Amino acid sequence: MINTLLLPEIREMLAQNNSEELAGFCNALHPARTAEFMGGLTIDETWAVLSHTDDENKGDVFSYFPVNKQVEMLTTQDRAEAASLVAMLPADDRVDLLQQLPKDPFEEILALLPAEERRDFLRLSQFPEGTAGAVMTSEMAKLSDKLTIREALDELAREGEDWETIYYIYIVDDEDHLRGLATARQLLVGMRKPETKLVDIMQTDLIAAHVLDDQEDVANKVARMDLLAIPVVDLERHLVGIITHDDIIDVVREEATEDAHRSAAVEPLDESYLQTGLLALSWKRGVWLTFLFFFALATAYALKQYDDRITTFRWLVAFIPLIISSGGNSGTQSATLIITALSRKHIALSDWVRVLRRELIMGLLLGVGLALLGYFASLLLIPMDAVNRDRAVFVVPLTLVLVVLAGTITGGILPLIFKRLGLDPAMMSNPFVAGIVDILGILIYVGVAWLLLGI
Amino acid sequence: MINTLLLPEIREMLAQNNSEELAGFCNALHPARTAEFMGGLTIDETWAVLSHTDDENKGDVFSYFPVNKQVEMLTTQDRAEAASLVAMLPADDRVDLLQQLPKDPFEEILALLPAEERRDFLRLSQFPEGTAGAVMTSEMAKLSDKLTIREALDELAREGEDWETIYYIYIVDDEDHLRGLATARQLLVGMRKPETKLVDIMQTDLIAAHVLDDQEDVANKVARMDLLAIPVVDLERHLVGIITHDDIIDVVREEATEDAHRSAAVEPLDESYLQTGLLALSWKRGVWLTFLFFFALATAYALKQYDDRITTFRWLVAFIPLIISSGGNSGTQSATLIITALSRKHIALSDWVRVLRRELIMGLLLGVGLALLGYFASLLLIPMDAVNRDRAVFVVPLTLVLVVLAGTITGGILPLIFKRLGLDPAMMSNPFVAGIVDILGILIYVGVAWLLLGI
Repeated sequence: MINTLLLPEIREMLAQNNSEELAGFCNALHPARTAEFMGGLTIDETWAVLSHTDDENKGDVFSYFPVNKQVEMLTTQDRAEAASLVAMLPADDRVDLLQQLPKDPFEEILALLPAEERRDFLRLSQFPEGTAGAVMTSEMAKLSDKLTIREALDELAREGEDWETIYYIYIVDDEDHLRGLATARQLLVGMRKPETKLVDIMQTDLIAAHVLDDQEDVANKVARMDLLAIPVVDLERHLVGIITHDDIIDVVREEATEDAHRSAAVEPLDESYLQTGLLALSWKRGVWLTFLFFFALATAYALKQYDDRITTFRWLVAFIPLIISSGGNSGTQSATLIITALSRKHIALSDWVRVLRRELIMGLLLGVGLALLGYFASLLLIPMDAVNRDRAVFVVPLTLVLVVLAGTITGGILPLIFKRLGLDPAMMSNPFVAGIVDILGILIYVGVAWLLLGI
Repeated sequence: MINTLLLPEIREMLAQNNSEELAGFCNALHPARTAEFMGGLTIDETWAVLSHTDDENKGDVFSYFPVNKQVEMLTTQDRAEAASLVAMLPADDRVDLLQQLPKDPFEEILALLPAEERRDFLRLSQFPEGTAGAVMTSEMAKLSDKLTIREALDELAREGEDWETIYYIYIVDDEDHLRGLATARQLLVGMRKPETKLVDIMQTDLIAAHVLDDQEDVANKVARMDLLAIPVVDLERHLVGIITHDDIIDVVREEATEDAHRSAAVEPLDESYLQTGLLALSWKRGVWLTFLFFFALATAYALKQYDDRITTFRWLVAFIPLIISSGGNSGTQSATLIITALSRKHIALSDWVRVLRRELIMGLLLGVGLALLGYFASLLLIPMDAVNRDRAVFVVPLTLVLVVLAGTITGGILPLIFKRLGLDPAMMSNPFVAGIVDILGILIYVGVAWLLLGI
């Protein structure tokens, strides 16, 4: 988001080096808005304005710039200043950003980071992309199970500024094992009995994620349980981090976009549409287009086997695209319904019989509906002098019923099969369904024509 | 989610009417887990177990049951008890649930609700589906701007139990106008100076939503700003509710599912796949299949005009599905990429020139790639004795370049046009792209064949 409304004023303040007004602009608004208003500035101008921001807001404003702008700023400006800015970022954002930097500035900035932040980076960056460890942050509210409510509140008042969230307070033993959870609300309400021990009020039935859990599964769990954050533990149940609601929303959006791309036969992008290079994007599309091409080639091959039969009844040719697209569309509908239901956990693998029965019935209903339309289309498009016209007008309707059925059943069952095989249903099944139903469509069409017309 | 692990134990406790153990089971776990373990019980059993749950957990456990189970419980059990359970639910969930009930139980339960909850229902239920007002809750932490930090903390300790979230505390004037925001963290940290007035520490640059804002826009705003909750105001800026992070995650997931369905030409479902009736689902699919049928019919009509030309060169028939699906696939890829980029705000309408240029280049790259494959396919599938074979083998490759280009450009630009017209790009463009590119594909194919072979 770029907002150029205040651009002239900001540039004027910069020209006059008006620290007071610049500081006022930088600190008055929500950091995301400040970042929007700075969207039109050059890298050097942005850096100059940012230097007038209070330390407590600087990292926040910076974190709302687009990633490519952040990278450019860090690589072009003074390394020591860059490192001190990086140190102000939330731990999880810091890892993501540092990993985007070219080798030289990355190593120089990492070397200049305070020891604690550097260690933190090395710990967080070891987890593979897509795992809970890779999205967690290490800045959680963590208190000893020995404290009373009064001591806990004192500690919060002292340390609270450094933590990403204090809405959940995690309670650990002396060896950092996760023992329980208290909410900020519990502590506030508990002020009436300040000498109560945390261990006596904490909740012990904790939902936690393991560092290597898949981020999508973690997001589903958080969404199902309506959590604000989820603690992340290692194999020995040491508390190593938390994933907060804002990162969960990002994961949910990212996964939804990936699923949409996969369903449309595009390999998921690592960056946004405009930021992805044309060659990279062509590759991510080309791989699947090529794959689908070979399916289509198989269809062509099947058609070629029958082209003498088909051209005997020339009008059959005109309906080929209609037959194929009706099968493909109903197949895509079913596959998408099943894929989204699977990912929302509305159905499980064990529901396959119900799915099959439902898709069978829907295939019949939809197929008969389209067959009616196909009958009228046949009356319209098949020449009056066609051989066996009285039977010919039933070829397309009957084919439609069978093709739509083939589409709904293939589309309904293939995602379940891929899921069963441990493959991503979204990626694997939509293109496959289209490919398979195309070939089936041709075979059914020729078969029905042979049955009714004897070709 | 249903977990049958504890089912025998729960049934045994019920048979023995063992209140103590039942209460232990109901209150020990996270409410979502308790609900999972109760998944296998009958309605009456569930109701009996629930009666042993502490009042403060009863509503929470109930809210994790599937909606159809909730509805069945409320309609079959004692009305007064049902009403007292409904009164325990969060205000926003209460509205959603009551609106699902059949007329009679709905009116009887509404009449039995405490006056405050009834008024609240009537106020919240007036907003149309899909607006901020329809997803907000009225139970927010709201304090007067006259209070000091000490008074605020006292008030929170007293009232905090009733509020859905106290992480953001909204500060209003005497007439309920939204004036500012303080975080629980600010209050805790501020305990060191307890006589400070709220008005002196509150943030005044507030992000708020209007009651009639589209829920998807509100979710985007919350995600972009990393908010925990967003206040909802009316036209006079009275604070009327808040939308919390968990409802935002639900909105994001719901909208992603709707977009996926729309892209696959299914009208979005109101309920999950298995819960939607077969007739309703067939209708939601049939509407678009019929629409697409007429596009396909137009393709058939176009083909019919040329069928004498095509059957002169009989081998042309075999490639029809390949041509059409190559155009359709590349068009769907582009449309999906643009639709997701639009909804993630990665591109804006003003980027149309860049989008057009990128899709043009990608169309050429992908088209030339497929053309190479198409050339070899032509060598393979066109009979050796075909007329003008030396030129014939170039018909499919040249067509593929042009069809893929038509696909990427139509797919790239149509979502932007629909967005410009105020229509939903996801719903309108994927099916349209497929329909348009099918027809274009046939016209291009015939055109190229005519050019190279003179048919």
